[in-house]
This record gives sequence, C-alpha cells and structure tokens, in this order.
Amino acid sequence: MSQSPSVTLYPLGGLGEIGLNCMVMVSGDDMVIIDCGLMFPDDSLFGIDVVIPRFDFILANKHKLRGIVVTHGHEDHIGALPWLLPYVDVPVYGSPLTLALVGKKLEEHNLKDFVTLTPVAKNQRLELGVFAFTFIEVCHSIVHGYGLGIETPAGKIVHSGDFKIDRNPMDGHITDLDAFARFSADGVRLLMSDSTNVERDGFSLNEREIKGALSDLFHKATGRILVTLFSSHIQRMQEVFELAHDTGRKVAISGKSLFSNTEIAKELGYLRIPPDSTCTLDDLPGMPDDKVVLLVTGSQGEPLSALSRLATGEHRQLRVHPGDTVLLSSRFIPGNVRAITRLINRLYKLGAEVLYENVQAIHASGHAYREELGIMLDTVKPKFFIPVHGEYRHLVKHCRLAVSRGVAPERALVIEDGNPVTLFADGGIRLEDAISVEHIYVDGKGVGDVGQSVLKERALLAGEGLVIVVMVVDEKTGEVTLGPNIMSKGFVFEQQYSHVLEDAKCIVWDIFENIPPGNPELLKERIRSSLRRFFRKILERDPVVVPLVITL
Amino acid sequence: MSQSPSVTLYPLGGLGEIGLNCMVMVSGDDMVIIDCGLMFPDDSLFGIDVVIPRFDFILANKHKLRGIVVTHGHEDHIGALPWLLPYVDVPVYGSPLTLALVGKKLEEHNLKDFVTLTPVAKNQRLELGVFAFTFIEVCHSIVHGYGLGIETPAGKIVHSGDFKIDRNPMDGHITDLDAFARFSADGVRLLMSDSTNVERDGFSLNEREIKGALSDLFHKATGRILVTLFSSHIQRMQEVFELAHDTGRKVAISGKSLFSNTEIAKELGYLRIPPDSTCTLDDLPGMPDDKVVLLVTGSQGEPLSALSRLATGEHRQLRVHPGDTVLLSSRFIPGNVRAITRLINRLYKLGAEVLYENVQAIHASGHAYREELGIMLDTVKPKFFIPVHGEYRHLVKHCRLAVSRGVAPERALVIEDGNPVTLFADGGIRLEDAISVEHIYVDGKGVGDVGQSVLKERALLAGEGLVIVVMVVDEKTGEVTLGPNIMSKGFVFEQQYSHVLEDAKCIVWDIFENIPPGNPELLKERIRSSLRRFFRKILERDPVVVPLVITL
Repeated sequence: MSQSPSVTLYPLGGLGEIGLNCMVMVSGDDMVIIDCGLMFPDDSLFGIDVVIPRFDFILANKHKLRGIVVTHGHEDHIGALPWLLPYVDVPVYGSPLTLALVGKKLEEHNLKDFVTLTPVAKNQRLELGVFAFTFIEVCHSIVHGYGLGIETPAGKIVHSGDFKIDRNPMDGHITDLDAFARFSADGVRLLMSDSTNVERDGFSLNEREIKGALSDLFHKATGRILVTLFSSHIQRMQEVFELAHDTGRKVAISGKSLFSNTEIAKELGYLRIPPDSTCTLDDLPGMPDDKVVLLVTGSQGEPLSALSRLATGEHRQLRVHPGDTVLLSSRFIPGNVRAITRLINRLYKLGAEVLYENVQAIHASGHAYREELGIMLDTVKPKFFIPVHGEYRHLVKHCRLAVSRGVAPERALVIEDGNPVTLFADGGIRLEDAISVEHIYVDGKGVGDVGQSVLKERALLAGEGLVIVVMVVDEKTGEVTLGPNIMSKGFVFEQQYSHVLEDAKCIVWDIFENIPPGNPELLKERIRSSLRRFFRKILERDPVVVPLVITL
Repeated sequence: MSQSPSVTLYPLGGLGEIGLNCMVMVSGDDMVIIDCGLMFPDDSLFGIDVVIPRFDFILANKHKLRGIVVTHGHEDHIGALPWLLPYVDVPVYGSPLTLALVGKKLEEHNLKDFVTLTPVAKNQRLELGVFAFTFIEVCHSIVHGYGLGIETPAGKIVHSGDFKIDRNPMDGHITDLDAFARFSADGVRLLMSDSTNVERDGFSLNEREIKGALSDLFHKATGRILVTLFSSHIQRMQEVFELAHDTGRKVAISGKSLFSNTEIAKELGYLRIPPDSTCTLDDLPGMPDDKVVLLVTGSQGEPLSALSRLATGEHRQLRVHPGDTVLLSSRFIPGNVRAITRLINRLYKLGAEVLYENVQAIHASGHAYREELGIMLDTVKPKFFIPVHGEYRHLVKHCRLAVSRGVAPERALVIEDGNPVTLFADGGIRLEDAISVEHIYVDGKGVGDVGQSVLKERALLAGEGLVIVVMVVDEKTGEVTLGPNIMSKGFVFEQQYSHVLEDAKCIVWDIFENIPPGNPELLKERIRSSLRRFFRKILERDPVVVPLVITL
C-alpha cells in the first residue's frame, strides 16, 4: 500500500439524491465535515418529518473531527445539524448569514448554548488540522454562500458548493471566478461540483432579468401586489423592497419564516430596507391598494402558510380581492405541484391575477446550467472530477460534461453515497470499500426507529384502513363470553356497510366453531386470513385485520 | 320565462379540473351525454382507485336520455362509463377505436353484453332526439377522436373535444378545420373548447417533429432501443414500427396494455405493421442488439410495468445492459415525477442511456397551445364561448383568449361543474341554479362510501399509525381482570420503544384508579386523550388511540 500522504473522501449524502448533502474528509488523524443537510420526505414516507444521513461513520471517528464547514444556509446543507451536534464538540464554520440560520435552527432544538458558531469571511484561510480551507464567494439562491478551496496533504481540492454564475451581477452577488482561478493556479487535484442542473443547456436566468420582469409587473399593477418566494431568498426580497420603493408602495409581511429571515438579514446587513418603505398588516385598511405590496409565505402551497390562508379566506387580517396581482416568485417543487395549482385556482376564483414561473419569468434557479458548469470546470482545470449534489443520472451527465471539458475519462468518477475515494499525494487514487450509509427517517423525537416495517404498516393502514375483531373466550368452558365485536377505522362508512360487518361476524363465529378450543393463535390466524379474503371478495378492499381473542 | 326553444348544458365534470369530463345536454324531453370520464386520485385520496362524476342528475332524468357520445378513447373521457352504463339503456356513439377501448373496459366489468356500441364515421350526421351530431375529425394524442358539431333547437353548438392542430400532418391525422368551418358557416351560438394548454404560447410540437427526433435517435443508436409511451398513443406506435422497419430492426412488445392496444389497433386498421417487422421476447436471445426495438409499458414509472421491472432487474425475460437506449416518449404526469426519475436513475445505473421530454423533444402534447386555440375560435366564430377541460385558471385564461379573438366579454363565460347554462333560440342565455355535483370516490366495489371521514381516518393512520389498548374489567368487583395490554400498528418499532409502551400502561392504570367504576365511556375518553398527550410529549407523535374496555 502506498505510504504517500493521502486524503479520503467519504460521501454520506447528496451523491445519488438531491438533498442530504454531507461529505466527510479524512487525512491521518484529522477529519472535517462539509455540509450536513437533510432531505424532505416524499409521499411514500408516511409520517416522516425529515430524512437525515446516517452519522455512524462520523461518530466512530469523532476524536479526529476538527470542524464542520457549511457552504450555505439551505436546509439540504445545514438541516441535519441538530441531529449531529449533540454528539460532537467542534465549531461550525460558515458565513455570518449561514451561521445565523444554523443558530435559529439550534435554538428551535434547544442546542444553541452548546455549539460554537465561528463566522468566516470571504477569501479567509482557515486551518483545520492538516487541512486549510479558503472560502470563495458563490452566487446562489441564498446570499453569502461559499465554494471551498481546500489544501490537503494530497493536493488541492475545490468544492463548488451550490452555485450559479451570474454574468451580470447586482449588489455584488457573484461567483468569484477570479478567486477560484487564483486558488487553482498551481494545480487542483480534484473538483467536486454541483450537478443539479446539468440537464439544462446554456445559462440560467440571472437575478437582473428576474428583477426586470418583476419591475415590469410592479409598474403595470394598479391594485395590490402579493409576492411569495422562498423565505431564504434574501436577494429576491431585496429586489421586492427596492421595487416597492420605486413604485411608491409599502411592504407588509405576513408569515413567520419571512418575518424571522428578514430580521436576521436586516441585522446582518444583507437586507437594506429603504426608509419609510414598510408597514404592518394593521396599517393596510387605510391604504390604497396601489400603495401596497404584501410579502407572504406559501410558495409551495403549504396549508398553514399566509398565502394558503388567503386563498381559502381564512387569513385573520387579509382578504384577496379582484385587482390583486399575486406573484409566485419561486419554483414548483414536484411533490407540491397539486397543492400549488389548487392554491392558484383558488386565487383566480377570488378574482386575483396570478403569475408564476410557467407563465412568466419571475423565478430563476440558483444552480448552474451546463455552460456555467463548463466555466467552473474550465476555471479550476482539475485533474480528477467527482460530481456532487445530484441524482445518479445527473452525476453521469456531469462526468460526461467534465470529459468534454478536458478531464480524462478515467478521472471523471461517478461516486455514490458510501463509496469512499482516496487521493494520494503521489498522484494515485483508490476507490475504498463501501461504508454503511442510509437514509435515516426522523419522525417526531424518534430518529431511525421508523424503518421499512413500520412504514409498510402505515402504507397498508393508509390504503384500506383497519378492522379490529374482539372476542372473549371462557378459559374453562371454551364458550364465547363476549363478541365477536367488529370495529373499523378508515375502512368503510360503517352505517352503510353494517350488513357486511354483520356477515363478517358470522364468519368469525364459523371459524370459532370449527377450531378445537385452546388454539388461540390458530384462531387468530384464521380470522385474519378469512376476513381478508371475505373483504377482498365483497368489497375488493384489503384492510389490516387485527384479531383480539382474549381468553379469561 | 322565455318560451323560446332552448337547450340547457349541465357540466358534471371537467370544468374546474383536468379529467372527469362529462357534459349533459337537455332540450325538452331529450337528453344526451357528451363524454363520461374519470380522474385518477391524488396522493391525498388514500386507497381510492378512481374518481368519477356524480350521476344523480342523469339518473333522475334517464327517461330523456337518447344516447352517450364519446369524443375519444382516453380514460378522462370514457373511464367512468362502467359506473353509469349499468343504470341506463342507451347506445354509446363514437369512432370505432374509441368504442373498441370502451368495449375492452366493459369486458373488464362484465358489462359488454348489456351495452350497444354504435360506431359513427367522420362527417356522419346522427340524430339523437331533437339533437343532431356531426362528427368532425380532430388530431389528438389518440387517433380517431372527434369534435362535435351539434344542431340544437337553440342553434348550433360546437364542442372541440380534445384537439391540437397539426399544421404538417402525417397519415391523415388532422383536425378537420374545413369541416368545422363548413358546420359553422351559418353561425354557431356556442363553442366549448379544450383549455388544457391555454397557458402555453404558440403552437405545440407536431408528430412529424417527434418522428424526426425519434428517427435521429434510431439512426444513431448502435445497441438496443427501448421505447415507452402512453399505450393509447397509436400514432406514436406507428412511428416506432416504421422507424424500426427503416433501420432494419424488429419490434418486440412487453406489457399487457401495449399488447391489447396494438391488437385492437391492428384489427381496426389504425396500426399498419410492416411485414416481418415484429418478433417476440423469446426471439431476442439470438438477435444482435442493433436489430431490436423493445416497445414497453411503464412511461409513468408504474411499479409493475415492464420498464420498472427492467429497471429493478425483475423482468422475467429481459435485462437492461450498457449500450441500451431507453426513450421515454411520454409526458411526466406531475404525481409520478418521483417514480419516473427513480426509474431513470436505475436505468442509468444499469448502463443504459435514457432520453425523455426534459432533455430531448421526443414527446408532444395532444392539446392545442394558445395559437391553435385561437385558430379554433377564428374558425368557429361563436357568439358565446364556454371553455371546457381545464382547471379554473385555464378556464379564465381561455375566456380571455376568446375575447381577444372577438367574442364579446359578456359572452365568454367561466362556468364550473354543476352550473347549468340555458341557450334560447331567440338569442338569450340564462345561468340556472346549481345542481349537485361531486367527486365520487371508487374504492374497490364501493362507490361513494369512502368520504371525507373515512379518508381522514386513513390519513391519520398513515401519519402516525395506531395504538390499541385492551383491558377487561370485572363488572361486579370493578377490578381489572386482564390488561391493560397495548399493541400498535405503524406507530413505533416496538422492541426499541418497549419502555414507552410500559409507561403508557402505567398511565392507563393511573387513569383507571382515578375514575369511579361504571364509567366506561369516561374511562375510554381519558385513556385516549392522556395517551395522545403522552405520546406527543415523549415522541412528538400522535397516533390514533383505540381504547377497548371490556366489562364482563
């Protein structure tokens, strides 16, 4: 085995899925974590709140851990920290905004006092054990994110973070290609780069274009303007405040996450609100419609958000009315499409005009399109390439792109979660044996206890409900002293199907009479299988059947 | 009240949702139904198989019913027939293909022998009571669909059916604008037109463009080609057979719905398969990869489809391998996006190349874009306009389009399901009182019994599962003779949380000891509320708690 100094990358999440980003880097006795994100569950994960990476590898090596570096403040990069930080004792490093959002999260989990959050400035160089991190500004759909230039014993590594390249930036929100180039000047061994939009050709829209489109709408609107957006999109909020100011409108906010994020962003200087340009919901009744902008939560149709409550007429202080223009300056996340379109239809029924990405260019992705990804590759000119932040097909396509930009085919590697890679100082690379990775499901305070078996039970219950059969049998005489009684949940509307439930009782009686006494397990098994067969035949439904046979 | 002859339109479905299309037309003692479609349930409708319109209005007036006219063979236009036809005794009219698909459906429901299916030819004029229908060819994503020219006592009505306008048609699949113009020459009172794609500007792609894109891929591919598509898209299938023939490949089919639809289409002459251009799955082992096309089911990632089984390695006869090109010549239906992308990622892992709408123009919508909708309006030049086949926002926008094309604003009407409209021969129009419409949920053999209360129980069970508490109390002594025992389904992994369940038992004991005997209802209520509180506190979970207190 090579004795050359080396660094090993352990991807715990994000290489094979969008979300759950977590990369661990080890060299000798030093370990650093890059990002610690969560993923939101899809509809098949009944009752699951969030999905996080499995941290066993980190915990088994926590004596080596020198720090956690977070690239930016989105949930898929910081969201799993509350489930890791109670077990490790190292600082978390990131930009002031990123750490403010981490801090808010830690407060919610009563962890704030136990964690050191250490802000780092752009272009700052931070040594963590044998590693040195240089934080390079990137443009993304949240301000003040970083890409990482990492000096390691096996050479330089660049991690792009989540980025896009805004060729016509506003307010200094740039991806600092010069800094990437400077860091890369003497050769980069490995680039890891954001693969989200590798399937989209050309360049993403930029914020100046979005602001232009919003500006047209602000200037045209004669009634109120309601804007919803991702509540972490500080730059977009800044645009809304500026456009409101330019068009003589005041901005009122409705929705908790927008309130707290604007407070954080104001305090840290990311959001510069023009004087006299805000008002509260209480001020609205006296104000003409064309003097008002409402910044509201609910871009994903979340049922309790301000916009959903407005659409259903359940908002405590506000009503939507004809003349209102609602701007969804946000993306439709696939799982939320039905909720969002329901919301839009409701707003139309109330007489509002609604504009959204499909019909108007009022949102831009925060992730680089193919040409931008190519520019990152051309800038860093890495020897090796590992695509990150993507599903499997994105990783494959990003590798192909890298090859088309000059990376040797055998050096563009599709690596999945759990497949460590070691870089050696002498130029070699080695794929290591897989480590155990997993999607850990968080349900309330339970972490990882809800697995496939519990989820399967939930899916069965969700599909056809449940039937409980209760009977009490006298131990001595073998006679039935109570029941069989049948109750159901989520199965049928019982009043309508009482005859079916009566027939089911007769079936249970029959079974009971044909099984010799003293065989409660057999009795239960027969009840379960016979009733399932009966319900399938009569109703084409297959509920969970729970037989309770009590012998007294 | 006007005594002028009149016709009243009763929209039972499709005006306010995509799917469930069903329009009833009544004049005096004559009634005709146009389309009778279903809608597939969204994820919130746990266990529901399909959604159908409420037919009460039809059944209450069935003595007037002269016939059912179906415009084309898609599920959202014919899918609810099996739940209506047992209760009415009139013929169903449509094109031979449409009726063949209706027939297949009726066979599955053992209804075939009781229903008269009467094919109608293009441009045929069919009298049904006081109405006369002229069937006008339209181009759509299923062949041989019709738009309708309807002569009524209150003037002419045009119903577009689902259509697009292919300006460069192949194989004679056209929307016969001349026929629409001829029918409309002496004035049309009302146009009802497909609103699905009103939010899309310009013209839809046409099949010639799709075939061109597929042709490029067929000529480039050096390995096997796998194609999946909507199994009702006969024209696309025709293209695949032709391209296979042109490139010296033979087509094998895997998947039940493709088998039966190609048989139907061949038999009726819609599909013309070149000689010697097919093979079976059994022939494949001896054939070189570049001589093979596989036409497979599974464009929506359906778990049991051929393509899903290929992706998971569970297909009985086939394996995907490097060199294979998989073409998803179909749309991603929003609710299926996660399943489809999971499928694509799996195919990439097996080494296949996968192409789909997002990355390659190999599918075209079957519904007219705005310019095409405009052409329909310009062709028919209706006095009144009612948009159909759309969600509320589509209807609003289609009305606006109609106004921009010359319909008077007060004559472009957004009408929703259940809101009848009467047209009078003397030129008037009247909005009638609403009739009762509803989304009826079909779950197995149960039609309409699963309502909001049962669905709510299923949602609760799905979310956090269920806890059953059983105890038996001696009626005379008031002592507990058995239990409390606790069992759960879909709640927690019991081995890991046995201490929680033990604590829950203690809580039940406590409650029991603090409630005077003879109060089983109070006891149950306390058990339910206390355990829910306990589980929320300890686990942040809120299962359904079923307390069974048996007094003997």
